[in-house]
Amino acid sequence: MTTRPPLAITMGDASGVGPEIVLRHHVAHGLGDAVVYGDVAILRHGIAVLGLGLDPEREVVAVAPDAEWPAPEDGVLRVVDLGLLTADQHRPGVLDAAAGAAAREYVLAATGAALAGTVSAVVTLPMNKEATQLTDPVFVGHTELIAAACGVERYSMMLAAGDLAVTHVSTHVSLREAIERVTVERVLDVVRLTHATLARFLDAPRIAVCGLNPHAGEHGLFGSEDAERIVPAIEAARAEGIDASGPHPADTVFHQAVHRKRFDAIVCMYHDQGHTPMKLLAFESGVNITIGLPVVRTSVDHGTAFDIAWQGVAFTDSLQHAIDWARKLVG
Amino acid sequence: MTTRPPLAITMGDASGVGPEIVLRHHVAHGLGDAVVYGDVAILRHGIAVLGLGLDPEREVVAVAPDAEWPAPEDGVLRVVDLGLLTADQHRPGVLDAAAGAAAREYVLAATGAALAGTVSAVVTLPMNKEATQLTDPVFVGHTELIAAACGVERYSMMLAAGDLAVTHVSTHVSLREAIERVTVERVLDVVRLTHATLARFLDAPRIAVCGLNPHAGEHGLFGSEDAERIVPAIEAARAEGIDASGPHPADTVFHQAVHRKRFDAIVCMYHDQGHTPMKLLAFESGVNITIGLPVVRTSVDHGTAFDIAWQGVAFTDSLQHAIDWARKLVG
Repeated sequence: MTTRPPLAITMGDASGVGPEIVLRHHVAHGLGDAVVYGDVAILRHGIAVLGLGLDPEREVVAVAPDAEWPAPEDGVLRVVDLGLLTADQHRPGVLDAAAGAAAREYVLAATGAALAGTVSAVVTLPMNKEATQLTDPVFVGHTELIAAACGVERYSMMLAAGDLAVTHVSTHVSLREAIERVTVERVLDVVRLTHATLARFLDAPRIAVCGLNPHAGEHGLFGSEDAERIVPAIEAARAEGIDASGPHPADTVFHQAVHRKRFDAIVCMYHDQGHTPMKLLAFESGVNITIGLPVVRTSVDHGTAFDIAWQGVAFTDSLQHAIDWARKLVG
Repeated sequence: MTTRPPLAITMGDASGVGPEIVLRHHVAHGLGDAVVYGDVAILRHGIAVLGLGLDPEREVVAVAPDAEWPAPEDGVLRVVDLGLLTADQHRPGVLDAAAGAAAREYVLAATGAALAGTVSAVVTLPMNKEATQLTDPVFVGHTELIAAACGVERYSMMLAAGDLAVTHVSTHVSLREAIERVTVERVLDVVRLTHATLARFLDAPRIAVCGLNPHAGEHGLFGSEDAERIVPAIEAARAEGIDASGPHPADTVFHQAVHRKRFDAIVCMYHDQGHTPMKLLAFESGVNITIGLPVVRTSVDHGTAFDIAWQGVAFTDSLQHAIDWARKLVG
């Protein structure tokens, strides 16, 4: 029997809540067989910043990324040490070029390891876009960085809250542009990606596809996109054996999924259609999953939160849910 | 001391859940001093359909709309009898021209009474658009009917769940058209209407205004409408002394309002932006309020539900919340 490689957790921007959440989650629950991609110096220094009762040398140890990982030991945080930041450079809550650049390298290293099969999945803690742009002006975002490292252009953002997964035809574009991006091809793509992702652990995932217009267009009364661009995509998906239905009115389908358990996933047409109900459901415990990649990547669904970083108050639930979803997707 | 006139409750389409909810709510909780605008014959017949233990003659009585109403009696449902339908015409769950036409008349009579000051507010149970269109092909909707009866063109739909109220810059138009309707003038209008409505019972209502684009446009990166059309409206409202803030990203402001209690109302830019989170919060207990009218009008936030009508299973909570909001707004 081969042992599955460990999960990789990237510790995120050292100024933000990422490494703090790693340490506090490690103390509270342990991280199982996961290894952290980050800087040992920051994590050891963080023990003192947070006043945690850990032995820095013995309980935070550097390990080498390898096909043969050392066995996990209870109470020991295993870190793939990129060696990019020193304890002197730790600036909690401060926008910092070195921390932003280092956060980028943790992600690239972990993604490379996932592509090589050295780790089984990548679970990311937050980067800070502005901090990373200080040294990498063309940096767009965390997800785009990973997708580019994987050489993938067709992917989608999935948000998960509890058992419900929500995917998006577009995300960070204007609402006008989002309407243009609702094409038969793209909707079908996202339905397929959603299905393929959930089919990793469900037999026949039930996928609800949202309409674009109110009441899903009310039979053409409020816009033609629902009939012309969404219906054909659903029909094509069904012809492929996918259990897709809709277009459903956005304002009732979340109730159907959450309170009646009628669907496993909802495909949304634009950012706020999916994000608004999901963040209402799970503001501090949501998981952000990039689907369509050759590697499993899940993420906490919050930012670096510089305003509260390293004060011991950041919520750590989201990391546990991101780990749970990664394990579910790895299978 | 003058006594405040009673609330008027319109019983809605006789084929649907409206009169059933009136009867079941009356039996379970009583309707206080409210009077029902509808058909005595249907309500009396409904007692038998539902198998309720009421005496039809003694406990459902016709009263005349007047400045001097007869005093309410415990256990007695007071009905302003429009006399439009007979018991023979009662067709539970069936789309019916006579029931659709009658539902329209209950609303017009109650609205007329509210304009005359004979009743203090109108609480409506659902009409069925298709049924009413059988005799009135130009019928657009319940709210439009009341607004026209009041001679008002500038109004907005408010949804309430618990203490939170949400209003809409537009509702039943395509998403493309909704974007066009986001103008400085209209946003300011809806902020003012929202403020005036909540100011009836709150000292300084805290009004959050949503952005149109994801992240409220992220400083112009995702569309220009937030900066060009919403910001000036908020500034103008603030100059008038209204506690308006934003534009807030739609995907976080509901969490702030619901879980952190930071706002009393949220002004939304389009139908699904407000309806999707609100129906997730309160699918069976939401209240729909028309603001900007010279009369107080609240409504249950559900339809005629022909599929379950007169089976004794329709939820009655929404009516209680609609009555509560009407009383709050009457003051």
